[in-house]
Amino acid sequence: MSDGYFTEQQTPHLRLGVRISRKLHEESTPYQRLAVYETTGLGRMLALDEIVQLTESDEWTYHEMMAHVPMLVHPCPRRALVVGGGDGGVLREILRHRTVAHAELVDIDEAVVRAAREFFPGVSCGFADPRARVIAGDGIVHVRDHPGEYDVIAVDSTDPIGPAVGLFQAGFYRSAAKALRSPGALSQQVGSPFYNRDFVRETVAAARTAFDEVRLYTGVVPTYPGGLWCYLLGIKGTVAAGFDAGRAAALGPTRYYSAEVHRQAFALPPFVAELLR
Amino acid sequence: MSDGYFTEQQTPHLRLGVRISRKLHEESTPYQRLAVYETTGLGRMLALDEIVQLTESDEWTYHEMMAHVPMLVHPCPRRALVVGGGDGGVLREILRHRTVAHAELVDIDEAVVRAAREFFPGVSCGFADPRARVIAGDGIVHVRDHPGEYDVIAVDSTDPIGPAVGLFQAGFYRSAAKALRSPGALSQQVGSPFYNRDFVRETVAAARTAFDEVRLYTGVVPTYPGGLWCYLLGIKGTVAAGFDAGRAAALGPTRYYSAEVHRQAFALPPFVAELLR
Repeated sequence: MSDGYFTEQQTPHLRLGVRISRKLHEESTPYQRLAVYETTGLGRMLALDEIVQLTESDEWTYHEMMAHVPMLVHPCPRRALVVGGGDGGVLREILRHRTVAHAELVDIDEAVVRAAREFFPGVSCGFADPRARVIAGDGIVHVRDHPGEYDVIAVDSTDPIGPAVGLFQAGFYRSAAKALRSPGALSQQVGSPFYNRDFVRETVAAARTAFDEVRLYTGVVPTYPGGLWCYLLGIKGTVAAGFDAGRAAALGPTRYYSAEVHRQAFALPPFVAELLR
Repeated sequence: MSDGYFTEQQTPHLRLGVRISRKLHEESTPYQRLAVYETTGLGRMLALDEIVQLTESDEWTYHEMMAHVPMLVHPCPRRALVVGGGDGGVLREILRHRTVAHAELVDIDEAVVRAAREFFPGVSCGFADPRARVIAGDGIVHVRDHPGEYDVIAVDSTDPIGPAVGLFQAGFYRSAAKALRSPGALSQQVGSPFYNRDFVRETVAAARTAFDEVRLYTGVVPTYPGGLWCYLLGIKGTVAAGFDAGRAAALGPTRYYSAEVHRQAFALPPFVAELLR
């Protein structure tokens, strides 16, 4: 942070600078450096290890696509798990689905959950829902220890460096597929189709060892490198090719997600479709 | 440019830094400051007034969406005009359509055309096509002086500051609608749905005074602010709601555009659809 800007080294070749008015919080947790800023144009911002995780101005693009796509691909999701996602944004969106009886969030770093409660009440509001349970723990262990428990799992981790590495490997995908009932769906952010092409390819290959079907979909996150982001959808068992547009409409107002956007998110531009080959 | 990075002030609140290995060219033209860099990760880059216009690594996302959408909405485009676009990328894509007998490019700044010829041969290659004519001139005047001449007009200008301001105003749209035959289609980059919301709204309103129908579509340009970009499509007369998928397939390999991407580009997320209201 120099001259009023928070600077993220997005790739070895690109930097993003976000103008901030002040730092609201900073701490070194056992897992990462956590910081909360007030920005001049994007509301409050959460950074982990100097990487932007979310800003209030656009967190809904990511959270809606992470939650609603697997939830609406599934015919009737009752039990959901968020791995990571300690800010609460994906959990908030999952809880908008009336079919959900129980939603768990397992984040390894309770400092993220604390910071979300204090600084991002609009994101973490799902923590107060009686259907929600927030657990401080290792998502990899939790998933391994809960076979047959969930209809939907959303893996909302940091980038695949540090504690999150294991969440992009075949062993985790096998545990996750076992933790799902059948049918079941898993969503996960897997990186930029411009700048992380090898990683996206390898991750798809690892997921294919565990799921009956692996798809990619895309969505925009304006503060992530290149703006366009890839999400992985792992399917256990069989789900319909389409999804329940009636349940999509019943969610109430969304800002990024819609039934049409859901469909178009799987219409991959050729340079993204290549990553599935 | 400090510590090896070219820095663009993308919005009052955001900066993009692109790592460069050297500056290949720099000049002050009568209209703007022009610079060409060799970057470390994105190939060569063209900047005008310190704003990234294109990089070799991703120029096709923008050029394909600017060209192919209006060209394929039109039932049989024979004569096309690019206003601005002196790098030649939109022209190159327009010339891939076999229906095209004649394509003109009118850029006010011949220095851009010269720099494109010298430093971006893969982008400006259409200049050598016998169907192409490159004119140094004011697009606003040119459009006013050529009524009934074109099937498709692509307005590929810099941002609406400086010489490009007039290209986003009702007077220009009225001239452009007259310069089109019927049916006719105009495409134009109009800004970020995240950061230029008022501008996009006002531009749509101005275009509506001149065209029979105005639509918005989106596409990703990774080095533009927020990654997601809005394009305006102005229709004169009536065109089919769909487009000619057979002609789309006949284009040969594309990297961003496809028939499916064409359709999905009009499936606007709710926060973008709002801009049409």
